[in-house]
Amino acid sequence: MTINVKITISLKDGMLDPEARAIQHALSNLGYATETLSTARVFNVGLDADSAETAERMATEMCNRLLANPVIHSYEIEVI
Amino acid sequence: MTINVKITISLKDGMLDPEARAIQHALSNLGYATETLSTARVFNVGLDADSAETAERMATEMCNRLLANPVIHSYEIEVI
Repeated sequence: MTINVKITISLKDGMLDPEARAIQHALSNLGYATETLSTARVFNVGLDADSAETAERMATEMCNRLLANPVIHSYEIEVI
Repeated sequence: MTINVKITISLKDGMLDPEARAIQHALSNLGYATETLSTARVFNVGLDADSAETAERMATEMCNRLLANPVIHSYEIEVI
């Protein structure tokens, strides 16, 4: 059966996020003052797995092997 | 006061997502068969606003003016 998993990948605390700074700067130029701004990527994945546990384990492996860089990223996996 | 808003920007249904296809292909090469895969960007923004309604209105304007391309993107705003 298909199990949907939502994977959120964000930079670890303390990592520089130049994209977020650029967006804050652009928003400020438009008159929107933001106090904080951070970015994250989301992957919504439909996996063929026989249980939620299997799907979560597959998603963890996918993060470690391809989607995230464990040096700079943290990730969160949510089985929907 | 600071109000945190989570903005999720994704491609509208039917739009091609070449990045998602490339990731599916790479995952498939590693042995992970995915049935569906879609991507989204998340911006966690701290706004100085006096109410949740004001923060939500500001976030909507920010999406329309800078963060999203209304032709191809849909967005979701969640006041946390």
